[in-house]
Amino acid sequence: MRKGNPRSLDRLLRPRTLAIVGASRDDKKVGHVVLHNILGAGFRGTVYLVNPEAKSIDQLPCYAKYRDLPEAPDLAIIALPSPATLKILPALAARGTKNIVIFSAGWRETGTAGEQQEIKLKQLAERAKLNILGPNCLGFLNASVNLNATFGRVLMQAGNLRFISQSGAIATALFDYAAANSLGFSEFITLGNKTVIDEVDILTYWQTAGAPHRTMEDLTSEGLAPYQPIGLYLESLERGQEFLQAVKIFSRHHPVFLIKPGRTAAAQTAMQSHTGALAGDEAVLTAALKSAGVIHCRTLEDLFDLSRFASWERAPQGPRVAIISNAGGPAVVATDNLTEAGLTLAPLSGAAKKTLRRWLPAFANVNDPIDLLGDALAKRYQIALQTVAAEPQVDALLVIITPQLMTQIEQTAEVISALSKKWQKPIVGALMGGQEIVAGEQVLNRYKIPSFRFPERALQALGALWWWQKWRQTTAKERRPHLKSLPLLSRAQKIIRQHQRRRLLALSPLAANTLLAATGLATPPSAAVWSGEAAGQWAAKIGYPVVLKLSSSALLHKTEQRAVITNIANQRALTAAWRQLEKKRRSLKQTRETPELFIQRQIQGGIEVIVGVKRDRNFGPVLLFGAGGTWAELIGQSIVHLLPLTIDKAAEMIKQSTVGRLLTGYRGAPASATTELALLMTRLGELALRIPAIKEIEINPVIVTPTRAWAVDIRVILNQT
Amino acid sequence: MRKGNPRSLDRLLRPRTLAIVGASRDDKKVGHVVLHNILGAGFRGTVYLVNPEAKSIDQLPCYAKYRDLPEAPDLAIIALPSPATLKILPALAARGTKNIVIFSAGWRETGTAGEQQEIKLKQLAERAKLNILGPNCLGFLNASVNLNATFGRVLMQAGNLRFISQSGAIATALFDYAAANSLGFSEFITLGNKTVIDEVDILTYWQTAGAPHRTMEDLTSEGLAPYQPIGLYLESLERGQEFLQAVKIFSRHHPVFLIKPGRTAAAQTAMQSHTGALAGDEAVLTAALKSAGVIHCRTLEDLFDLSRFASWERAPQGPRVAIISNAGGPAVVATDNLTEAGLTLAPLSGAAKKTLRRWLPAFANVNDPIDLLGDALAKRYQIALQTVAAEPQVDALLVIITPQLMTQIEQTAEVISALSKKWQKPIVGALMGGQEIVAGEQVLNRYKIPSFRFPERALQALGALWWWQKWRQTTAKERRPHLKSLPLLSRAQKIIRQHQRRRLLALSPLAANTLLAATGLATPPSAAVWSGEAAGQWAAKIGYPVVLKLSSSALLHKTEQRAVITNIANQRALTAAWRQLEKKRRSLKQTRETPELFIQRQIQGGIEVIVGVKRDRNFGPVLLFGAGGTWAELIGQSIVHLLPLTIDKAAEMIKQSTVGRLLTGYRGAPASATTELALLMTRLGELALRIPAIKEIEINPVIVTPTRAWAVDIRVILNQT
Repeated sequence: MRKGNPRSLDRLLRPRTLAIVGASRDDKKVGHVVLHNILGAGFRGTVYLVNPEAKSIDQLPCYAKYRDLPEAPDLAIIALPSPATLKILPALAARGTKNIVIFSAGWRETGTAGEQQEIKLKQLAERAKLNILGPNCLGFLNASVNLNATFGRVLMQAGNLRFISQSGAIATALFDYAAANSLGFSEFITLGNKTVIDEVDILTYWQTAGAPHRTMEDLTSEGLAPYQPIGLYLESLERGQEFLQAVKIFSRHHPVFLIKPGRTAAAQTAMQSHTGALAGDEAVLTAALKSAGVIHCRTLEDLFDLSRFASWERAPQGPRVAIISNAGGPAVVATDNLTEAGLTLAPLSGAAKKTLRRWLPAFANVNDPIDLLGDALAKRYQIALQTVAAEPQVDALLVIITPQLMTQIEQTAEVISALSKKWQKPIVGALMGGQEIVAGEQVLNRYKIPSFRFPERALQALGALWWWQKWRQTTAKERRPHLKSLPLLSRAQKIIRQHQRRRLLALSPLAANTLLAATGLATPPSAAVWSGEAAGQWAAKIGYPVVLKLSSSALLHKTEQRAVITNIANQRALTAAWRQLEKKRRSLKQTRETPELFIQRQIQGGIEVIVGVKRDRNFGPVLLFGAGGTWAELIGQSIVHLLPLTIDKAAEMIKQSTVGRLLTGYRGAPASATTELALLMTRLGELALRIPAIKEIEINPVIVTPTRAWAVDIRVILNQT
Repeated sequence: MRKGNPRSLDRLLRPRTLAIVGASRDDKKVGHVVLHNILGAGFRGTVYLVNPEAKSIDQLPCYAKYRDLPEAPDLAIIALPSPATLKILPALAARGTKNIVIFSAGWRETGTAGEQQEIKLKQLAERAKLNILGPNCLGFLNASVNLNATFGRVLMQAGNLRFISQSGAIATALFDYAAANSLGFSEFITLGNKTVIDEVDILTYWQTAGAPHRTMEDLTSEGLAPYQPIGLYLESLERGQEFLQAVKIFSRHHPVFLIKPGRTAAAQTAMQSHTGALAGDEAVLTAALKSAGVIHCRTLEDLFDLSRFASWERAPQGPRVAIISNAGGPAVVATDNLTEAGLTLAPLSGAAKKTLRRWLPAFANVNDPIDLLGDALAKRYQIALQTVAAEPQVDALLVIITPQLMTQIEQTAEVISALSKKWQKPIVGALMGGQEIVAGEQVLNRYKIPSFRFPERALQALGALWWWQKWRQTTAKERRPHLKSLPLLSRAQKIIRQHQRRRLLALSPLAANTLLAATGLATPPSAAVWSGEAAGQWAAKIGYPVVLKLSSSALLHKTEQRAVITNIANQRALTAAWRQLEKKRRSLKQTRETPELFIQRQIQGGIEVIVGVKRDRNFGPVLLFGAGGTWAELIGQSIVHLLPLTIDKAAEMIKQSTVGRLLTGYRGAPASATTELALLMTRLGELALRIPAIKEIEINPVIVTPTRAWAVDIRVILNQT
């Protein structure tokens, strides 16, 4: 059902009746724990048990066979080993159950035999139109119907956090973390092997139905943030483009944060061996998540911290943070981390400083970061907090408490809690220490105020939420991509078709030049030349210096193979160059495509950049931009953007790049034609979108002069048809 | 005593007798808490109390005046406000007490009046030769004599960790953290304002005396690492070079780790306002700490994590880590973090894999990261740990435990603890969750095995210690810098003296050229020319293209001011260039130095780099290296190295840099003269060391061709005399 209508998961995630197949009396068995969890959480629907060897478990009768059940349950939870699971599935389908959760491992993740089993499972599901969650998953949790259909040890505390995890262990660790911190979930879905249902199905279901969305008032009255944030642990993102579309609908209103291992080659190998997940390109993933407003976590600590922060505290409306501390040292360390988290210190008003000066001791520091001194009692914190929170130029507050001689940790936490309700801006705690601070942490947890053991952890989370807030603000203003029609698109299409007919997988440089010229890009005047004389005549007309190139798709890295001669200043040099390349041309092996020489006007001056498009396995076509020429691979990563690309976004990419600083008039040099360059980038993006036969284009360099952006050296690769 | 003999701090830190001046009955007062701490920790020396208003406190008699004391105590601890402290000091000195701890705030950190008080304090100390710790400090802790002379709430648990903190709050937070984690200190010194005693004094004292150093056997028998690690929180490092010398003596044998706030401008401002500490250059600090083998922490979490890790667990002998986990997800995230922490996965032997395959379930993954599966009991962990720890190619083990259904957290922790004693390689735990894992953490704490809530925290600490181990290994092999004599040094000195006599603070480009040529650096053939004809004759002899420059120290950024004309290809162009610059020369304001024109052969091809020397306020002369020309400021930071610089280190700097990849023959280009460049760098460093009058040299660019490294554009600034 990956195409067509979205999968209806309502009866899976909100069943009226369910059956546990493989229910067990043994409290160490999964088939017992899930029953225990379901009964313990207060599920109000009907629960059937299937076990041929027991009469009853926990006073619930057991049915020997699935077909004996008095009705077809909405949901069947299978707690059997993988072979038995495969065997029983047809009986479930025959009885009319469409929704299945499979706990057992022993599938694709275990090698070839398991993979065969999983293929059978998938075929079965397709034939019988089954919604299967798992296999190799921990089940799910849905607080809106009091259903804990997991075999994890989880405290059923309702909350506003939604979570999708491909890993059961991340789920169990989060459950334990949640229990210790009074953090509640509204839904928690573990996906396991994603044989049938994946993250896109869940997100799509949540859009249309899902748990009843609570109003902002409901949430804030419980001390929660006015969101239903979504946390994601995913090892693969096969349907990347659909995922982005689905997640973007949420991220406009709710913080969404994700961790995806596989940044490094070592992790990719490890992941592939344990789930068979194929790694994508990390730069593309980063660009994709950025475009969809998804916070990209790099560590599990970030993921856990954000789970709590996003559930409890609203995102700041701006980057200005006031730090209030009873110690200078931690406050200055925090100031370093603040800057690095994309936040700034808040400039306090004169009035606020005056108030602070009146009420705080003489030696206290009334500039942000505010130092209340080591003997600050709760009252002193209260005065500072009140004064600072009322400042309109303060977007968020960080309260640092170190356990000094007089410090009233618990009372200070109460003060923070009382004030936090009053102000619609995030207030967050950093309580440093080990045991003396625990009582304070418990108070803050009770009032749903995120607190951390180190100020930098608080700032990291706050910075991530500010990034999200900024994304929301700019996305709201964003104009829809305006796709201008490509001039002469049909001519470009014709060139591609000609190549396809001849089964050529790469365009020769000359053909690539023609293609881009047809698309309206500025390419240097060029001509195919078949004799030294013709070349001389052309150069005399157009003007020296010129470049002579041997055009053959067989020579992809021309510079190294010396198939390009630049800086040809006069007729004599041209004749010599001609002889050299013509000799080389004749020596080339004959392929379906005839190598030819072509001459080009040399673009002088200007700055070299690289622009390319490629197709990512998960996220589709992307545009790349970076420094060009020899520097391309030295200056570090190029910047990636998912297509389509607006002119504004192209301009932003240029601005963000290192080479962009050269382009916008560095050190008194004239500003280059960045608008022309942005236009070239969007047009190239459009070309890739309109002609799917194009697999990859790389223009290296594009030479950007003060007036034009010239596509000088072009490489076009086609998809196999 | 900053010069001459090191300060003897023995009677300060190991007193036989001490007096508390301002001892108090009020248990909320500092003068009570310190007494309570001293008595509570079991100090065996004599304790005198001074308080004119009490007869006795806690059954100890009080003396009304210091002069009434029956003997001159080795140490006086003053718990009085700052004005009273100043007033009583002469009496202490008169009675013969040389060692003082001052708790009170109210000095430099509070503004001008406080600063005046602190100056008086310093003068008093100098006159009476007093060793003063503080003021504005929390005191110190010395476990070897059972002395807790702090007013913090600290559990007196002896350990092997030495700590120096400029902040009292960092100390109180660490005390609380230590108490919660059974972490013990051997010495803990808080410095406060460092008016008299600073970190260099403490380190120097520790070298010669200090607490009796325990043998490796003593330490390991207590379950500790075979080190006495040193942690440092410092806001300033005024005596940078002495600090490096002192700290390096320790870092060869013990892990030393430091955090110093002030990386960002915001933190520098905040710090200056609260302690008056002046910020140094962060890149120089990083280079300095690296050269001394000091682990540079960026967050408080890193500092706290390392305090525990370095105290309890030895550093790995190599980077190869085996990860053993009951969950695939956290293990692959950890693999990402592992790579980023400078570590690698360990390749297991065929024999080990065979053993694992025999004993682990069929679906378990026996490649690193090893996945024991979610139902792993303690026994399964034990088998895996035993097998893997015995592998010689495994340098360290990370054990991840997630609280799954069957997980035996406490028993697994016992298994880890038992095996940890057996192997001389670090074994570290990552117990993920919140409350179920606490019992396991307590077991590990008891056995002094560092455990963390997230695998990346464990790996960050492990990576830091591996960095230190590597530093030790390479430093042991390091040849002492071999300072070759500078050719014609006396000629260079003569040029500098001439400028000094004329009170010139900068060398003209031509003089700078002469200076470096005299030092043996390759400079392009150059000549001062006083007429267009002379220029033409010179060029005809040396060969075109040439460069014409207007040499005047008044024109420091020549390119922008168009005082350099490059690419002069023939006589006609030279004449035009001459006219242009000669006109500009005449228009220059006359200064003490006569502007002149000079001609230079143009170095063609090659790669532009920048090499410079400057003098850092804290750490003295440093050498800078980076990409040159227009790219200099775009490609990011240049690399810094403290002087002296050996050829090997210079080669390493080149190799580490981005531009270094171009130099060592990028993409088939010929390898440039990196050896010549390394030689130029060491020679420039020597020049700066030999002639202290040189404040700064910048050569931008050095053009590195395949055979030479040419110092093309040179700027030399002198110190004011």
